Amino acid sequence: MKNMENQLLFKFREKLAESKLDAFLVTSTGNVQYLTGFTGHDTFLLITADNRGADLITDFRYIEQAEQETAGFEIIRHKNGLIKKVKELTKKLKIKKLGFESNYLTYTMVTLLRKKLGQRTELVPTSDLVESLREIKTPDEIGRIRQAVDCARLAFLKVTKIIKPGMTEKELANELDYYLRLAGAENSAFGTIVAADERASLPHARPTDKIITPHSAVLFDWGACCQSYCSDLTRVVFLGKIPPLLKKLYRIVAEAQQRAIDLIKPGLPIGRLDKTARAFIQKKGYGKYFGHGLGHGIGRQGHEAPRLKGNKNKLQPGMVMTIEPGIYLPGQGGIRIEDMVLVTETGCELLTASVPKKLEEMVL
Amino acid sequence: MKNMENQLLFKFREKLAESKLDAFLVTSTGNVQYLTGFTGHDTFLLITADNRGADLITDFRYIEQAEQETAGFEIIRHKNGLIKKVKELTKKLKIKKLGFESNYLTYTMVTLLRKKLGQRTELVPTSDLVESLREIKTPDEIGRIRQAVDCARLAFLKVTKIIKPGMTEKELANELDYYLRLAGAENSAFGTIVAADERASLPHARPTDKIITPHSAVLFDWGACCQSYCSDLTRVVFLGKIPPLLKKLYRIVAEAQQRAIDLIKPGLPIGRLDKTARAFIQKKGYGKYFGHGLGHGIGRQGHEAPRLKGNKNKLQPGMVMTIEPGIYLPGQGGIRIEDMVLVTETGCELLTASVPKKLEEMVL
Repeated sequence: MKNMENQLLFKFREKLAESKLDAFLVTSTGNVQYLTGFTGHDTFLLITADNRGADLITDFRYIEQAEQETAGFEIIRHKNGLIKKVKELTKKLKIKKLGFESNYLTYTMVTLLRKKLGQRTELVPTSDLVESLREIKTPDEIGRIRQAVDCARLAFLKVTKIIKPGMTEKELANELDYYLRLAGAENSAFGTIVAADERASLPHARPTDKIITPHSAVLFDWGACCQSYCSDLTRVVFLGKIPPLLKKLYRIVAEAQQRAIDLIKPGLPIGRLDKTARAFIQKKGYGKYFGHGLGHGIGRQGHEAPRLKGNKNKLQPGMVMTIEPGIYLPGQGGIRIEDMVLVTETGCELLTASVPKKLEEMVL
Repeated sequence: MKNMENQLLFKFREKLAESKLDAFLVTSTGNVQYLTGFTGHDTFLLITADNRGADLITDFRYIEQAEQETAGFEIIRHKNGLIKKVKELTKKLKIKKLGFESNYLTYTMVTLLRKKLGQRTELVPTSDLVESLREIKTPDEIGRIRQAVDCARLAFLKVTKIIKPGMTEKELANELDYYLRLAGAENSAFGTIVAADERASLPHARPTDKIITPHSAVLFDWGACCQSYCSDLTRVVFLGKIPPLLKKLYRIVAEAQQRAIDLIKPGLPIGRLDKTARAFIQKKGYGKYFGHGLGHGIGRQGHEAPRLKGNKNKLQPGMVMTIEPGIYLPGQGGIRIEDMVLVTETGCELLTASVPKKLEEMVL
């Protein structure tokens, strides 16, 4: 684990050397955690392109934790603000060109940094330096993702056993999250969605007090966070007979998903996946009811690079992403099926293959 | 509920009129939700100083939800990006000076906005326009906070009944969160902290597999989120006899807290509270082991205005904040006691008074 992180630091410095920056200031929690293994917040990381500096700047609350969780970084305590400490360090390290994460740092913070650093250090807006590393998962990261899938599977199977008419969406979400953590997850990866019947037409529905009936269709969109890595799945289960319309939608969505998955292999332009699934749903007449992208990269964060829709970059081995087409009919209901895939050297592995998906398996 | 929100819009426009801005772009999720009642994400709100525009700009996923949850706002769907839609609207509404939330909007987004809006609309970095409204809670908001306290209380009492040696920190956190939601909370307000024995010296400890022993001291820092409003408490419970050192620390922390609470009334400079509690802990010789601020405002977010430490503004009726001194001895353990107070016309109300706190009540 600690070795992996130092390898990352090495790889990151290689990227930094290409960028012509003297140093880079990592401010987003996800990227700081990725590069260091530290699990706290409100912490900056200053890395020089050469070997002089790899400084984790944090406050009183996290000193002990940072010392326990990281290796190869100097833990530096700030007392009067992160920015002030960045100023001290850039002066000490004689940094002339400092990259910063322009997609994360706020306008106020950049303005303050500019003022503090003055003429001595040029601030260079930079994006995707850490993200492009994160796009390709290491075997260790893939192992954690597999564990997150397994926790998600166990909790879902448990909930499909205890679900019964009279329970509410909220109760089901609570049970699911409880069993996720009992299975070993640190937490749910995001706010678990449980949406029954017509509420499934809201792609991001929060669970409500709506009661499950003997004939409900219930959409679950859930995931686990294990060792800081996420899973993310969606399934729809049916308590009674499946209404004919939903049966039809289910088959369309499942085929759209499969058509995208079948294409996955290194070298394919990423955007092709969304186009393919969307074209199929459009052909079936439901194009305007599939209003979101086909999926997203996933790892330390539930949503991370690569973006799927309109992405001209190519698939590479080690990428992990969700494939989640859906059809949403306002007032009537919705179907979404979401799986996770790992791009391999020759094609892809369906990481969520062990979670039931066939239409006949979804009838409880 | 919906009436309250329109009153807020009215109040907000009064503030906006003072600011000399033609319009304000709200981009932070918390502020968008506060002003509109909408519970989704990835949504901007454009409000003109006059009555012409109050536009909620969102995407496909949230249209139905936004229509259900808000009143008095025009729901506008964007297809090709929030920024592009902001450009269209500012042009249509002939906005010359547009304020934006410089503490939330990223450098990249501001750069993009500047480019899109061009010379026609001046972008003005603005802070605390919505936050200053949020600082003072309405009776409706206070009602929701009371409910969040009540859920937190019920879950804590339940967990103190089931806690026993052999359970892990993680299991206890999972049980606590489960009972929070069973009591009616939407969720825990933040990652519940359960830290046993020497781990309590980490102010932001995440629960681990550490096992509770027959003589453990266990710190709980938890809160509920009810109708989008938060509670936040900390208690330390003792399974066996209280170790003399912890007994001593508990009494010091409790008195430091009480001294701060006793001062609370409208007109007092807010920073005085932190100074008072800190001075007492320093006098007792533990000043350097109290490394964080005394507390924080709380409401729709777990941490919001007012800041307590070093704040020269004055307490006002309707402010809700935590008071949470602590002493942390690395490798040995820690004590933190956290309560929530509401500033009243004449003093303050301890919102968390119903949650046991006396040292003798903490022995299970």
